[in-house]
Amino acid sequence: MKLVRFGAVGAERAGLVDSEGRIRDLSGRIPDIDPDGLAPARLAELSRVDVSQLPIVDGSSRLGTPLMGISKFIAIGLNYSDHAAEANLRSPSEPVIFTKATSSICGPNDALVIPRGSMKTDWEVELGVVIGRRASYVSKIEALDHVAGYVCVNDVSERAYQIERGGTWDKGKGCDTFGPIGPWLVTTDEVGDPQRLAMWLDVNGIRKQSGSTANMIFDVATLVSYVSEFMTLLPGDIVTTGTPAGVGMGQKPDPQYLKPGDVVTLGVHKLGTQRQVCVAWNGTASPATPWV
Amino acid sequence: MKLVRFGAVGAERAGLVDSEGRIRDLSGRIPDIDPDGLAPARLAELSRVDVSQLPIVDGSSRLGTPLMGISKFIAIGLNYSDHAAEANLRSPSEPVIFTKATSSICGPNDALVIPRGSMKTDWEVELGVVIGRRASYVSKIEALDHVAGYVCVNDVSERAYQIERGGTWDKGKGCDTFGPIGPWLVTTDEVGDPQRLAMWLDVNGIRKQSGSTANMIFDVATLVSYVSEFMTLLPGDIVTTGTPAGVGMGQKPDPQYLKPGDVVTLGVHKLGTQRQVCVAWNGTASPATPWV
Repeated sequence: MKLVRFGAVGAERAGLVDSEGRIRDLSGRIPDIDPDGLAPARLAELSRVDVSQLPIVDGSSRLGTPLMGISKFIAIGLNYSDHAAEANLRSPSEPVIFTKATSSICGPNDALVIPRGSMKTDWEVELGVVIGRRASYVSKIEALDHVAGYVCVNDVSERAYQIERGGTWDKGKGCDTFGPIGPWLVTTDEVGDPQRLAMWLDVNGIRKQSGSTANMIFDVATLVSYVSEFMTLLPGDIVTTGTPAGVGMGQKPDPQYLKPGDVVTLGVHKLGTQRQVCVAWNGTASPATPWV
Repeated sequence: MKLVRFGAVGAERAGLVDSEGRIRDLSGRIPDIDPDGLAPARLAELSRVDVSQLPIVDGSSRLGTPLMGISKFIAIGLNYSDHAAEANLRSPSEPVIFTKATSSICGPNDALVIPRGSMKTDWEVELGVVIGRRASYVSKIEALDHVAGYVCVNDVSERAYQIERGGTWDKGKGCDTFGPIGPWLVTTDEVGDPQRLAMWLDVNGIRKQSGSTANMIFDVATLVSYVSEFMTLLPGDIVTTGTPAGVGMGQKPDPQYLKPGDVVTLGVHKLGTQRQVCVAWNGTASPATPWV
C-alpha cells in the first residue's frame, strides 16, 4: 500500500493511493495514519479494504507527511562512500547517528524555509525507514520485521550550523521545514528489497544527486539493528539512512547552496517524488507542528 | 505550583504538591499535564484551584515524569567551565547542542537500566527548562517568557557510546531510562531566578557533584534564545542546561562508572530530588514509552 495524508497543515486526513494513482479517502475507516496503525496486524487489516469503495480525493489537495506521531527522527551520516569522500571525511567504521528535530518535519511539497541569515542550506535525498514494531536490541536478521515501510526524505542541512558552530551536527539538521517526508509511506511488501532503490535529486531541473541504496555502507537491516542498541525505536519512528554524493557542499569548483526561488525535486524509486520551493524566512511563525 | 504525575507507567494522573508536601489529585480538573496546559493562561487558571478541595494521594505512589507530550529533549553540553575542564575540553564559544531520545524519558525514581554490555554509564545532574510557549527566534530578553517552569534532570550518559563509537554524542545520551525528569515541574513564579539554584548528586551516599546554576557559561535566557535560532521549541519541550564538575568520567585518580546496585540521588534547589537504583539490562522490553 501507498499510504498518504492529505489536507491543510494540522488537519490532514488518512488516504491511500489506488492502482491508478488517485488518492482515496481512508478517513472513514481509520482515524489517522499513526504509530498504532503501523502494527503488522493493523496494516494487514487495512490491506483488505475494498479500495474501489473509498471516496476519490481531489488530486490538487496538499499532501502532509504520510504518518503522524513520529516521536524520533533519527538520521545516519556518511552512509555512502562517495558522499563521505565529497565531505572530505573517511567512511565510518560503524554507523554515525544524529538526530533531526521532529519539529522539522513537513509535507513533501511544502515550502523549504531558508533559516534567517543562512548561507549554506543544502539538500540530501535519502531513503527513510518507518518503524512498525518496537525495536530494542534487535538482531540484523530480525531487523526488517520491525519495519512497516519506507518513505522518501530530504535531509535538509545547514552546513554552517552543522559544522562551523560547534557541538554536534544536530544544530544544522533540525530547522523548521528541514524534514520533508513523503509523499507516500509505502509498505514493505510493495517495496521489496530496500537495497535496490535508485534515488535522485535535482535543483532547478539540473541533476545533482543520482544514486542507489545498493551503495549504502551499512544496509537497512544493519542500521535498524545498530540504532536499536542505543535507543528503543518505537512505532512511527523514522531512521533516515544517509545520502549519496552530489550535495551542495560537494559541488565543484565551488559549493552551491539553496536560495529563495530555487526548486528542489527528488525521488526514491517506488516511493514517489517531492518538490520544494525555497523561500526566505519571513519573520512570522514557521509551519512547525508538534508531531505528537 | 509544583506539578506532578503519579501512578503506574503509562497510566499516570495529574497532581500537584500542596504546601505540606502532600500530593493532591488534579485528574478531576485537567486531563493530564500536557503541552497545551503549559500555556500561561492555563497555568494561571490552574493556580486558582482550591487545593484544599483536591483529594490527597497516597504518598507511596510512583511518580512519573511531571509532564507528558515532550516532543523534543534538547541538551546543552559543556555549560559549566569546571565540567569542560574535567572532560579535557575547552569551554565552548557558543552553546553545544545535542539531543536526547524522548524514549529515554522516565520518572525521577525509576530504575536506571545499565545498557547491555555498558561499562561507562555516568551521571549528570542538570537544571531542565520546560517550554510553555512556542519559541522561534526569540531574543534573550523575551526568552524567559517562553518558559513554563523548571525540572531536575539526570542527563545519564554512556561515555563509550558518546565518545568512542563515532559520530555525534546522541548515541550515548538516549538509552532507555537515561532521562529521569522530575519529581516536580515547578512553575517559574515559584522558582524565581533560575541562575541561583544549588544542585548536587550523590552515588551511594557519597557526594560527587555540587554546583550552582550561577556558574553556567550560558544562562537559561541565552540558551532558550540560542536553541530557538536552530529549531522551533514547542510547548512541553525540554532544554536541559548542562552539568557541573564531578561526573564519573572526571573522578580521580580513575573514572568511576555506575554498576548494578548503585544508588544515585540528586537534586536541584526548589525542584525536588530524584533517586535511581541501577539495574542490569535484563533482556526484556525496556520501560521506554512513546511520549506522544
